[in-house]
Amino acid sequence: MEQNPLQLDKREMRKLGYQIIDQLVEHYSQLPNKSVFNSSSPEQLQLLLEESIPYEGSNYEIVLDQLNKNVLNHITFSSHPRFFAFVPSPSNFIGVVADLLAKGYNIFNGAWHESAGAAQIEKITIDWFRQIFGMPITAGGLFLSGGSMANLTASFLAKEIKLSNEEKHGTIYYSDQTHSSVFRALRMLGFQERQIRIIRSDHQFEINLEHLVQMIEKDKKDGMKPFLIVGNVGSTNTGSIDPICDLLQISKYYDLWLHVDGAIGAATILDDRIKHRLKSIGQVDSITFDPHKWWFQPYGIGGLLVKNITQLEKTFQLLPEYLDDSKTKGREINFYNYGPELSRPFRALKVWFSFQVFGLNAFKEAVQHGVNMARYCQQIVDNMPQWEIVSPAYTCIINFRYVPQGMTEAAINHINKQISQRIIESGWAMIRTTTLKCQRVLRLCPINPRVTREEIELTFHKLDKIAKDICKSNID
Amino acid sequence: MEQNPLQLDKREMRKLGYQIIDQLVEHYSQLPNKSVFNSSSPEQLQLLLEESIPYEGSNYEIVLDQLNKNVLNHITFSSHPRFFAFVPSPSNFIGVVADLLAKGYNIFNGAWHESAGAAQIEKITIDWFRQIFGMPITAGGLFLSGGSMANLTASFLAKEIKLSNEEKHGTIYYSDQTHSSVFRALRMLGFQERQIRIIRSDHQFEINLEHLVQMIEKDKKDGMKPFLIVGNVGSTNTGSIDPICDLLQISKYYDLWLHVDGAIGAATILDDRIKHRLKSIGQVDSITFDPHKWWFQPYGIGGLLVKNITQLEKTFQLLPEYLDDSKTKGREINFYNYGPELSRPFRALKVWFSFQVFGLNAFKEAVQHGVNMARYCQQIVDNMPQWEIVSPAYTCIINFRYVPQGMTEAAINHINKQISQRIIESGWAMIRTTTLKCQRVLRLCPINPRVTREEIELTFHKLDKIAKDICKSNID
Repeated sequence: MEQNPLQLDKREMRKLGYQIIDQLVEHYSQLPNKSVFNSSSPEQLQLLLEESIPYEGSNYEIVLDQLNKNVLNHITFSSHPRFFAFVPSPSNFIGVVADLLAKGYNIFNGAWHESAGAAQIEKITIDWFRQIFGMPITAGGLFLSGGSMANLTASFLAKEIKLSNEEKHGTIYYSDQTHSSVFRALRMLGFQERQIRIIRSDHQFEINLEHLVQMIEKDKKDGMKPFLIVGNVGSTNTGSIDPICDLLQISKYYDLWLHVDGAIGAATILDDRIKHRLKSIGQVDSITFDPHKWWFQPYGIGGLLVKNITQLEKTFQLLPEYLDDSKTKGREINFYNYGPELSRPFRALKVWFSFQVFGLNAFKEAVQHGVNMARYCQQIVDNMPQWEIVSPAYTCIINFRYVPQGMTEAAINHINKQISQRIIESGWAMIRTTTLKCQRVLRLCPINPRVTREEIELTFHKLDKIAKDICKSNID
Repeated sequence: MEQNPLQLDKREMRKLGYQIIDQLVEHYSQLPNKSVFNSSSPEQLQLLLEESIPYEGSNYEIVLDQLNKNVLNHITFSSHPRFFAFVPSPSNFIGVVADLLAKGYNIFNGAWHESAGAAQIEKITIDWFRQIFGMPITAGGLFLSGGSMANLTASFLAKEIKLSNEEKHGTIYYSDQTHSSVFRALRMLGFQERQIRIIRSDHQFEINLEHLVQMIEKDKKDGMKPFLIVGNVGSTNTGSIDPICDLLQISKYYDLWLHVDGAIGAATILDDRIKHRLKSIGQVDSITFDPHKWWFQPYGIGGLLVKNITQLEKTFQLLPEYLDDSKTKGREINFYNYGPELSRPFRALKVWFSFQVFGLNAFKEAVQHGVNMARYCQQIVDNMPQWEIVSPAYTCIINFRYVPQGMTEAAINHINKQISQRIIESGWAMIRTTTLKCQRVLRLCPINPRVTREEIELTFHKLDKIAKDICKSNID
């Protein structure tokens, strides 16, 4: 082999790199004018995209052209200002170029001796979050690929610490508003459905404490071993916050691990109007937070903080013979000893870089804007005849629905689902439905810092028009 | 809020983007001339890097400058041509810019309706690997963050399929050359050490089949439930390949799940001299392969293929109320139903893009170069007096050591460790040690397609000189 066959020359690398930067800058500035929703069927895509293995190469211009025409125009961008579904990911450009640096230098952030600089940045960045949440100096953590992995890692730690060899009798408690990743994580860890207690939530979609205590007491009487409570800071349906203070007292009283899933709402610690609800969060055993959601980073980065970092290291550490030379001493950290991954990309860089460039105060402002927008949405719905709020703006989400008079529940559910479909198909906004209190409702999460009051107003104007059009066509 | 506080203007975005592209192009072309090893102590880095939370922002030029001076020069680059330790990650520039596109557009590749184009690309790319390994049409899979996650996902699937509710008696079998991530994954899934059978390897570092069968038979007699064999294609220490054909027969006979960990060596399917050893790999139950290793992609991307994709979906699928609108029909795929992550970055794009641009034949050539280099290393050691091969170039790794006459075993172990330290500190090459047959040995994995025969020759020349210098100074 004369030359690396997977290589471009310098001129080509630079040209392609610039071209993609130009394309991204254009995309970013044009995004608000683009359709939010772009999809396609497998059959259509099959016609557009060649499926056989490319044995021979092609010019990168041709491949990029194909990508632009046949892939990127079939993507619904969750960083679009009017993407209001699920949890949007309104990322920032500094985060993107930080990721480019991490990928371009191809940094392995697992072992201190291989990437001291990267390990130090992850350590510093994680420590910022420790301070933000008010956790003790014994606390620490790591970045993972997302909230699901953070919940999995925390649950495994809880099991190791609280349940050594007793897992058959271990029981877990969380509300019916908890994210499905927690259930999946527990199933992976070997727990059966019979060990998982889904506590009903109250009218504000917070865990019912009385029911929780009853279940714990009953399980103890039945010879079970209660060991883990998962509390929500920003539940998926409504953004509600479980009473962390009370959960902390209960978990201490019964000696249970308290994990907080703050994937959606942990960023509300930056909003003075809400942060009192998170007052005790610094004392819990572990916290999931999710930089690729309301901390404005590109996918995929989740974060985990644990109260006692030594426990995390003891639980996950690897000491095979081929890593003998990588053993740490003193304050060196091998991040592969903190979680389930060995090879790990340098995820921390985007958080570090964007915090440095914009400053935490700018992130505060951006989070507050999201809360403002959710509250503004609520205010608008409150003033719209024939519409009702089903869950108010606890944090960054509202649920609401169209309730024309004289219609059956089934018909109301159906029409709200239709409204969602129509607004999505129009390309204006991405608004999905969920089920709350047995009702199908529209759900809106306006956390993109680019979204304006005018866009919000226009969105509700359009929703109202769609709703009335549907009713009218049903009558006709 | 007047304007998004996490935003640069177009001109700045473009300027910064170009600047980073320039920097990466320079880095890439200068890399062979740079020191391989760059590290620092926590104390030094603490002096260099401010640790307090940045409440106010800074100009990105200043932050980038700090990053360059105080972080990126304390990184040992695993894509350096003379990084021979662990498994190098010799990534390609197309993979890097593909990742930039995925991050810049911030694509969520979880649900068909949100990112049909991305899902189709992942489906196509995974199918290329299915064809490369010769798996049946029922097979499928997904990309994860790395090999550890792929092994975890496969092991959970094996447990679900083979062991429903019998996990207490389940037993697992793999050789003493198996990667530590398998053990960690099994521990996470709830298995105890007493359920894990480490089978000794033979003189070629392959699993001892006789011992394996004995253990299975004994466990069955003892009322255990053998359910999983993990075979290696490219073991971590030596790159050895377990006899997949035989493991397949054994797993079929005893009705066990056969998982192949091919994180290191699965790419040898592209080398005609080795692929006969992988003849039956298409018939196994699941395969881990690792694009960020010998498939030349940047971190972090691992791959998993399973024989029966329906089983994978049944095992991992989520159906909460808030994902009701995302339900698929027909041939649509929600990749969040295939593994433990919900939010997932668009990892497939870099594989798709680089395969399209370079063609699979170029990847073949690059893999063959790695095998050639490993064999060339072996040939050199064979001809060096006072040096011996401990494990030959089964695939892409050799283990060897300096064995001066009249020295005790302890002294030989010590001197080889010193040789590793000296060559690393010199900045010329990254060569770590491992333990084989109770001996400390030097381990070398030359898979970077940029590494030349001249660099290999010079490396051994330097090793020999270092060894003799150490001996001399010991005598003096």
